[in-house]
Amino acid sequence: MTELLLHMIEKHKKVTEEGKVANYIPELSKANPTDLGIYVLDNDGNEFFAGDYDKKFTVQSISKVVSLMLAILDNGEELVFSKVGMDPSGDPFNSIRKLETSSRRKPYNPMINAGAIVVSSMIKGVDVKDKFNRLLDFFKLITEDPTLDLNSRVYLSETETGNKNRSMGYFLKSENIIVGNVEEVLEIYFKQCSIDVTTKTIARLGLFLANEGKLSTGEEIITPRITRIVKTLMVTCGMYDSSGEFAVRVGLPSKSGVGGGIVSVIPHKMGIGVYSPSLDKKGNPIAGISLLEDLCNELKCRIF
Amino acid sequence: MTELLLHMIEKHKKVTEEGKVANYIPELSKANPTDLGIYVLDNDGNEFFAGDYDKKFTVQSISKVVSLMLAILDNGEELVFSKVGMDPSGDPFNSIRKLETSSRRKPYNPMINAGAIVVSSMIKGVDVKDKFNRLLDFFKLITEDPTLDLNSRVYLSETETGNKNRSMGYFLKSENIIVGNVEEVLEIYFKQCSIDVTTKTIARLGLFLANEGKLSTGEEIITPRITRIVKTLMVTCGMYDSSGEFAVRVGLPSKSGVGGGIVSVIPHKMGIGVYSPSLDKKGNPIAGISLLEDLCNELKCRIF
Amino acid sequence: MTELLLHMIEKHKKVTEEGKVANYIPELSKANPTDLGIYVLDNDGNEFFAGDYDKKFTVQSISKVVSLMLAILDNGEELVFSKVGMDPSGDPFNSIRKLETSSRRKPYNPMINAGAIVVSSMIKGVDVKDKFNRLLDFFKLITEDPTLDLNSRVYLSETETGNKNRSMGYFLKSENIIVGNVEEVLEIYFKQCSIDVTTKTIARLGLFLANEGKLSTGEEIITPRITRIVKTLMVTCGMYDSSGEFAVRVGLPSKSGVGGGIVSVIPHKMGIGVYSPSLDKKGNPIAGISLLEDLCNELKCRIF
Amino acid sequence: MTELLLHMIEKHKKVTEEGKVANYIPELSKANPTDLGIYVLDNDGNEFFAGDYDKKFTVQSISKVVSLMLAILDNGEELVFSKVGMDPSGDPFNSIRKLETSSRRKPYNPMINAGAIVVSSMIKGVDVKDKFNRLLDFFKLITEDPTLDLNSRVYLSETETGNKNRSMGYFLKSENIIVGNVEEVLEIYFKQCSIDVTTKTIARLGLFLANEGKLSTGEEIITPRITRIVKTLMVTCGMYDSSGEFAVRVGLPSKSGVGGGIVSVIPHKMGIGVYSPSLDKKGNPIAGISLLEDLCNELKCRIF
Repeated sequence: MTELLLHMIEKHKKVTEEGKVANYIPELSKANPTDLGIYVLDNDGNEFFAGDYDKKFTVQSISKVVSLMLAILDNGEELVFSKVGMDPSGDPFNSIRKLETSSRRKPYNPMINAGAIVVSSMIKGVDVKDKFNRLLDFFKLITEDPTLDLNSRVYLSETETGNKNRSMGYFLKSENIIVGNVEEVLEIYFKQCSIDVTTKTIARLGLFLANEGKLSTGEEIITPRITRIVKTLMVTCGMYDSSGEFAVRVGLPSKSGVGGGIVSVIPHKMGIGVYSPSLDKKGNPIAGISLLEDLCNELKCRIF
Repeated sequence: MTELLLHMIEKHKKVTEEGKVANYIPELSKANPTDLGIYVLDNDGNEFFAGDYDKKFTVQSISKVVSLMLAILDNGEELVFSKVGMDPSGDPFNSIRKLETSSRRKPYNPMINAGAIVVSSMIKGVDVKDKFNRLLDFFKLITEDPTLDLNSRVYLSETETGNKNRSMGYFLKSENIIVGNVEEVLEIYFKQCSIDVTTKTIARLGLFLANEGKLSTGEEIITPRITRIVKTLMVTCGMYDSSGEFAVRVGLPSKSGVGGGIVSVIPHKMGIGVYSPSLDKKGNPIAGISLLEDLCNELKCRIF
Repeated sequence: MTELLLHMIEKHKKVTEEGKVANYIPELSKANPTDLGIYVLDNDGNEFFAGDYDKKFTVQSISKVVSLMLAILDNGEELVFSKVGMDPSGDPFNSIRKLETSSRRKPYNPMINAGAIVVSSMIKGVDVKDKFNRLLDFFKLITEDPTLDLNSRVYLSETETGNKNRSMGYFLKSENIIVGNVEEVLEIYFKQCSIDVTTKTIARLGLFLANEGKLSTGEEIITPRITRIVKTLMVTCGMYDSSGEFAVRVGLPSKSGVGGGIVSVIPHKMGIGVYSPSLDKKGNPIAGISLLEDLCNELKCRIF
Repeated sequence: MTELLLHMIEKHKKVTEEGKVANYIPELSKANPTDLGIYVLDNDGNEFFAGDYDKKFTVQSISKVVSLMLAILDNGEELVFSKVGMDPSGDPFNSIRKLETSSRRKPYNPMINAGAIVVSSMIKGVDVKDKFNRLLDFFKLITEDPTLDLNSRVYLSETETGNKNRSMGYFLKSENIIVGNVEEVLEIYFKQCSIDVTTKTIARLGLFLANEGKLSTGEEIITPRITRIVKTLMVTCGMYDSSGEFAVRVGLPSKSGVGGGIVSVIPHKMGIGVYSPSLDKKGNPIAGISLLEDLCNELKCRIF
């Protein structure tokens, strides 16, 4: 397996040249575009890795998976999905139009920005600091990684440049979908996106989902049903508006982030974390996707 | 003429029952729905009025006409229209979708909220207070009414409930169409909407436009070309997305506000101010429009 | 006046180089891009002309003005405007999206293709041949030009390439806005667009509107109210989605066609016909517009 | 298993009252709204069924799965997906707007009407009759049901009422995505939707996909890769714009039709056919979905 991963990294490294690093946030543009790393964890406790597996990067949109689980724990499935849908939107991740043109004003799903902002608004806590800390603690718990922390420079960068997200926040507020203070909701959202991780953290998140919400100790943190909702949404909406093509090519519940990360889940078997900061035009890690496609062909692990 | 106006008020008073007072801003909902008043000023210095002509109401969207003139004076026609278009949008006044779906990201015209917010962002001044004061002073100058002032309760109400406008502001900021601080721009915008006027103030604004930018003293404040731009935009976009129907029915450059006001211009002849807080479904004063249609039939003053 | 026109033609001839001839219909692409001609008729029976005033071209969208008048005569204003709106759409002339996304499924106005197809479906007659002949006869009557006839090559070309119009026709049929046979409705529509005219024909159409529906003999063919509706729609929607900018620049009720024609109306005074087959990006005659703007500055004939 | 199915039919029968039979095609409105039937086929040759399992109904949109496989066989994957996408659209199945507003003019996926019409245009044959016969023969082959035939009354009904599909066809023609004669393409499309089936036919289609393109004899008709593409598209887009919610609730590759049918695939194990003509607001069989959700809970067969 390790050899396979080493071979894969080498083979797909050149694909990184076809994309480019995210530049809408100045801090993200500092990533090394040719980086490519992978971490695989299986149910028997084995760990395999290759390439730039230990580079730090911010979790970005992969955090949407984490906040969704906590919001459902905090509020119940019914309340959460009364404020955000379960369906693919067919539009780019930062699009606002569907909020206005759709008969239902709620965001289409929790994987696009508008939906994730609504989800963040539902995290419970006595104040904004407490809410974020609860989210960070939950993230540490399920990834069994107590070292997780905020990357302040990226957070600052997000805050300064996040006007489209701010626009969505106020739109959702005007529709009474967000009930609290918009700036506080955005603080949580921008902070959750700015948590530093490595491919190992992300692979653990994948394994947690693969094991239907159980830690490596066997302790169940969330119900299988919640993980099933999350994994389904990852399949249908996890890779922005190229989720459909990704499902054909890779066929695993996955979620990408513009920081370069991808988490993939092989149900009941493995969690995979990838780092590949060079992005395609839709904002997905370009070499990470081709590597995962190749790996799935080798491992014959597709769910379809 | 006075008799005609008295007759008109009486005749159209019952139309007020077909609409309802704006309720999205709590303060506006306190208006008396059956109020109906009119003020007509002509070039010879005659003044005619009837009904609730001396009630105070906030100018709301009629202020878009005033801020547009000042923004062109401050920045020149070219710069202003590089940031906002001249074309009808076909969408409701508070719509955001065109900002995203259109190939040109700038708002369609200065009469819809998004466009007017951009215009407000271009008023010059050392700080936000100075900018608003310059706008208020300009409004006083062209309406020859030194008593104009802010209605603080309405302004507070606007600020608290203006999240859709806030959403647009941040969207325009993210597209670099607004360059300054969004909250400051919105402060100016909300304040300009919250200036108290009477039908006489509004009629004076109409006469100023009818006289191609000249005061009653003959002094030219803005060029005929700027007034032509403003009057044209009033015809094509002044009554929100029912501007086309209004142009057929009334046929005068006009601008409405959700406070119940309408300013109408009979080129080279008259300025008309109407107050009619009961609104139709598109946000236009319902009895004010039927009154103006009837009056135009009598006066044979249509421009078409 | 003749000298002024000659000077104008010479001055704006070079503007033709900035556009290009319509090529979506093969026959139209055969026009000479540098052609530029004008014809002016006034109420005293004077005729002025210059440039390529006697070239034949197909009337194209200018026919929408003619069919609208006949449809109102045939069906009454109320019925016609129950099936087509009076408001600018803010979208390109051949756009279909608003038919679906708008709460009102009817086309926004009779000047965009979808609206004009609905109007054509309302022309009365025993069969499709009779309907078109009635339209052609009406066109001959109001332009006092008995020589008007169909350009069969252009008609054939329209039919073969008109699939977007066909798409709209079937959409409108599915919404029950068109009640008859779609192919027959399109036959009328494509034929009305394919009538050959010269600038003189078009100037006569303008004068007919300027005189509120009266022929040169003084005979009233349609009511002033119908001409007012038509002229208003020309101002707000006559130049596709640049109607707003045109209204500022030229300020006369006008309608363009992709064949290169423009009809303009100086109320109570003149009718103007322009031929300028080189089009701008929105499908309007590029040199024709700049010529009209210049001419209006000279004649001081703006309605605003 | 048979007992389980009988119990399920009885339990979910009352859900049929919450929906209603399709009425946009007169023939479809004749179905009995309380009908509910199911057929299950497994790899060992076992057959289980209950309820109205032997009622005939037209296959409608489930045929999109069949035509897609044949079109890929005829043209290759690359050519097919150059004309139709692989991504969910987020809009209703008969929506036209995305064809215009999207930067890519091709339909989002082969499961919405616009995409399926493009797919039908790619079926090979010497003439329209041959093309449809090839499609029918292929359908017979993979369902091992030589009795399949066209329901002429439904086909006639489809042709007469299919103007929205006709509208899409001409739009796609105008964009050069469809190259042939639109009426012929629609004939194939309307006919493929009008093939009579029973739940058994549909269950066989499901088993064929479950077995990665193999008949019960073991003969491989299409490659596993093609079936994977089809199954993935069924998950992400198979239940119109409620595909996301369905994936959470049921979690099996499935495709519904307005005739009341649903095909579901349990990979490597079973094919399921359901008949439930009472539809929910999005056009999906309402009792069929609740029955499948319940059954999947019992069988623990979800892919997520």
